[in-house]
Amino acid sequence: MEYQLAIIGGGPAGYSAAEIAGNSGLKVVLFEKSSLGGVCLNEGCIPTKTLLYSAKVYDGAKNAGKYAVKADNVSFDVSKIVSRKQKVVRKLVLGIKNKMNVAGVKVVAGEAFIQDKNTVVCDGETYKCDKMLICTGSETFVPYIDGIGETEYWTHRDALDCKELPESIAIIGGGVIGMELASYFCSLGVKVTVIEMMSEILGGMDAELSSMLRGEYAKKGIDFLLNTKVEKLVQRDSRVELCCSSKDGEICLVVDKILLSVGRKPVLRGFGLENLNIEYTMNNKVKVDSNMMTSVEGVYACGDITGFSMLAHTAVREGEVAVHHITGKNDCMRYNAIPGVVYTNPEIAGVGETEESLFEKGIEYKLTKLPMAFAGRFVAENEGVNGVCKVITDINGVVLGVHMLGNPASELIVIAGIMIEDGKKLEDIKKYVFPHPTVGEIFREM
Amino acid sequence: MEYQLAIIGGGPAGYSAAEIAGNSGLKVVLFEKSSLGGVCLNEGCIPTKTLLYSAKVYDGAKNAGKYAVKADNVSFDVSKIVSRKQKVVRKLVLGIKNKMNVAGVKVVAGEAFIQDKNTVVCDGETYKCDKMLICTGSETFVPYIDGIGETEYWTHRDALDCKELPESIAIIGGGVIGMELASYFCSLGVKVTVIEMMSEILGGMDAELSSMLRGEYAKKGIDFLLNTKVEKLVQRDSRVELCCSSKDGEICLVVDKILLSVGRKPVLRGFGLENLNIEYTMNNKVKVDSNMMTSVEGVYACGDITGFSMLAHTAVREGEVAVHHITGKNDCMRYNAIPGVVYTNPEIAGVGETEESLFEKGIEYKLTKLPMAFAGRFVAENEGVNGVCKVITDINGVVLGVHMLGNPASELIVIAGIMIEDGKKLEDIKKYVFPHPTVGEIFREM
Repeated sequence: MEYQLAIIGGGPAGYSAAEIAGNSGLKVVLFEKSSLGGVCLNEGCIPTKTLLYSAKVYDGAKNAGKYAVKADNVSFDVSKIVSRKQKVVRKLVLGIKNKMNVAGVKVVAGEAFIQDKNTVVCDGETYKCDKMLICTGSETFVPYIDGIGETEYWTHRDALDCKELPESIAIIGGGVIGMELASYFCSLGVKVTVIEMMSEILGGMDAELSSMLRGEYAKKGIDFLLNTKVEKLVQRDSRVELCCSSKDGEICLVVDKILLSVGRKPVLRGFGLENLNIEYTMNNKVKVDSNMMTSVEGVYACGDITGFSMLAHTAVREGEVAVHHITGKNDCMRYNAIPGVVYTNPEIAGVGETEESLFEKGIEYKLTKLPMAFAGRFVAENEGVNGVCKVITDINGVVLGVHMLGNPASELIVIAGIMIEDGKKLEDIKKYVFPHPTVGEIFREM
Repeated sequence: MEYQLAIIGGGPAGYSAAEIAGNSGLKVVLFEKSSLGGVCLNEGCIPTKTLLYSAKVYDGAKNAGKYAVKADNVSFDVSKIVSRKQKVVRKLVLGIKNKMNVAGVKVVAGEAFIQDKNTVVCDGETYKCDKMLICTGSETFVPYIDGIGETEYWTHRDALDCKELPESIAIIGGGVIGMELASYFCSLGVKVTVIEMMSEILGGMDAELSSMLRGEYAKKGIDFLLNTKVEKLVQRDSRVELCCSSKDGEICLVVDKILLSVGRKPVLRGFGLENLNIEYTMNNKVKVDSNMMTSVEGVYACGDITGFSMLAHTAVREGEVAVHHITGKNDCMRYNAIPGVVYTNPEIAGVGETEESLFEKGIEYKLTKLPMAFAGRFVAENEGVNGVCKVITDINGVVLGVHMLGNPASELIVIAGIMIEDGKKLEDIKKYVFPHPTVGEIFREM
C-alpha cells in the first residue's frame, strides 16, 4: 500500500497533522497502537480536566454560602466521577475518529515498525510512504529511588482511574501533573503532601505566582516539602514509608499511596527509529529544524519526542507546521508564544518570558503588576479570592511575557500570546474593545 | 477655578477619560451628581453580574449531580444576594475613587450646569475649562402604554434591589437587560413571561443563536410572547393585568410584577446642554466626529448620549479617544469590532457583522459553524449543554463577525474582536497557539 504520508502515533501531533494533510488532499496513513488521542486525550489533559471540574463543582457547592446560596450534605461519588470522565473521553475519541474519516485518513490500529524512511510494517502488512511523521510521544519517567522496585506506586494513570480514595497521598514532583492531581485529591478530602526537589513548585512558571498558589493550597491543607529529595521507599503492608532528605535534615512519612510525577521522557525505542539514523539533541530528544524535519530528508518529528515543551498544543502546532512544509505552504515553528496552564483552582497561566528567564539571559525588562480585582467581573465572581496579573515588557514596551493567577486564566492567556506573537506593545491592547464586565479587561487596565 | 478638562458625568466614559487625562498631566475636574461608576457600576452591568453569579452558583449546586456531586436542600437567601451585590459595588466604587486620586482628578459631587463651552457651575461654584467632555449617559425609556400612569412597574433598578421575590413577573422587552433579569428570576424560581414586540429576542445579536437561547430558556420554564405588544395595563390590587395584542389575537395575563426594559434614552436635559448649540443626529443623539468631538470646537461627547451602542465598553473606548485627541495622540473611534454579550447561562456573545446585517447590506459572505463540543474542554465542563460558534467571513476569508453561544463566550469574544480589528483572515488564527484544553480552541477548529 502506497501513501504520501505515514504518521506514527495518533496523539495531538499525529491526529492534527493527519487531519490537515488529509484535507489538503494527501493520501495519509496513521498508526496508533492504543487509542486515538494519545496520552493527552486518554490519560492526560482531558481526563484531568474532567475530574477537576467535578472537584470544582463540589468545592462550589460547599462554598456556595459566599454567594448567599446554601446546600446541605454536599458529597460526591468518586466512582461516578471517574465514569463520567470515561464517557467524556469516549465522546472525544469518537470525534477524532470522525475527523479522520472526513479527512480520508486511513487509521491502522496496531504497533508500527519503521524499516526505512519509506517503509513501515504493522501486523505483517507493509506500507510504503513518501514522507514520514513520527510522533510517538512520551511516557512517565520513573526515577531511581532506593526501594522503588519493591514498592507500589501510582502514576497519573492510576490516579485518574482511582475509584476508592486513599486517606493520604504523597505526590513526588510538584510540576503541572503533580499539582493538578494534588488539587483534585485535596478537594475530595484526601490528605496530600507534595514533595518537590526544587525550591518552588511548578518550575518554569512565574515563581512569584507559583509561590502564591502554593500558599493558597497550603491554606487548603496540602503539605509542601520543598528542596526535598525522596531517598528511600519502604512498603509497610498496604502503606508506604518515604524517607526524604532536605537541608533541614531527614523527614519520614507514611502514606496510603504515592504518586510519581517527576517528569516524562520521549518514547524513542520499540518502533524501529534506530533504522533511520537520525540525529538527536544533546539531551536525547529528536533533533528537528524549524519545519519539524529531522536530519533525514522527508522524515518529520513532532510532539513530546522533540522535547521542546511537552504540551499537547505545542504538538498540534508542530504537526501543522510539518504538514505545511510537506504541502509547500509557508510556515515555521516558533516557541516564543506558547502558553502554559495549570488547571488548579485558581488557575495559573503564563506565556513568553518569565522574570526568572530574563534575569538568566541578562535582559532588561519592565514589570507591570495588578491585582485581578481591577477587573470588576473578577470581584463579582471571586468572593474572598485574590489573583494577580503580571505583564513583562522590554524597555520599549513590547510584551515579552504575561503571567496570571486567577480564573479563567486558562482561557485568557491566549490573548497575551497573540500580543507576543504579533510583537505588540502593551499600549497597543488599548485599541481593542473588551466587553465589560469581563475578567479579560485586566489586560486593558495594565 | 481653572481646569484644562471638565468632564460631566462619572460613568465609564467619564471616569476612564478622567483617569487617562489626569495621568497624561492634564488638570481635570469630574462632576458626578450621584455615585462614581454611573449606571453601569451602580445599577447595571456589575450588579447584574453579581446577582447572576449567585444564581449560577445556585443552579450549579442544584445540578451538581451531572458531575457526580450531590447536595441536599439547595436554597438561597435573596436578601443576602442583594447585600453581597451592594458590597461588590461599594468595593468597585472605592476603586474608581482611588484611581481618580492617583490620577490627580478633582471629583466634584453635585449637579453640574453648563453655562458656556468654557464654564460649568456646580453648587454655586464656577469652574472654567479649556475643553469639555459630556457623558451624562442614558436613562430607562418608559413607553406610553394605556394605563401605565396608574400602574406600579419596576425598572431594572427595582429588580436589582428586590429582596422579596414575586411569584410571577412579566418582563416587557426581551433585549439584553430583559433577558439577563429573566435569567436571574427564572433561576430563583419566579414564573417569568418575556414579552417582545419583535419576532425574536435580543435584537441585534445573531438571530439563530438568540433563537437557540430562547429555546433553552423555554425549557427552563420562561414563557416567550414574541411579535406581541402590550396594549393596556390595569392594576388589580397588588397585581397587574397586561392586555397584549399579537397577530394571533389578544392575550391577557395577570402577574405580581411587571418590569419595563424596552430600551434606554440619552440624558440631554437639565444640565445646560442647550447653552452650547451643538448639533444632534436625526434620532436625537449628540452628533460627534471620529475624535468624539461635537459640532462645537473643544466640546466632546462620549457614551450613551452619542447613541452608537449604549455599552459601557464602547463608552470607555470613546473616552480614551476623546482624551487622545485633546492630548494630540493619534487615535480614532471605530465601531466595527465592539463585542456584545448577554450574561445568561449559557452566555451569548457576538462581535462584528451578523448574517442579518450583511443580508441587509447585500454583502456576500461565507459562514462556518461548529458545535462548541469540538473543544474538548467544553465537553468536560458542560454536561448535557450544547453550544455553537459561528464565524462569518467575506469571500476572501477576512473575518467580519463571530457569534458564540456557550460559556465562557463573554471572555472569548474579544479574541474574535482582535481578529476583526486587525483585518485578519480566519486561517491566520492558526499561527497562534491556544492552550489545550480550552474552550477558546474552538477558534482554531473553525
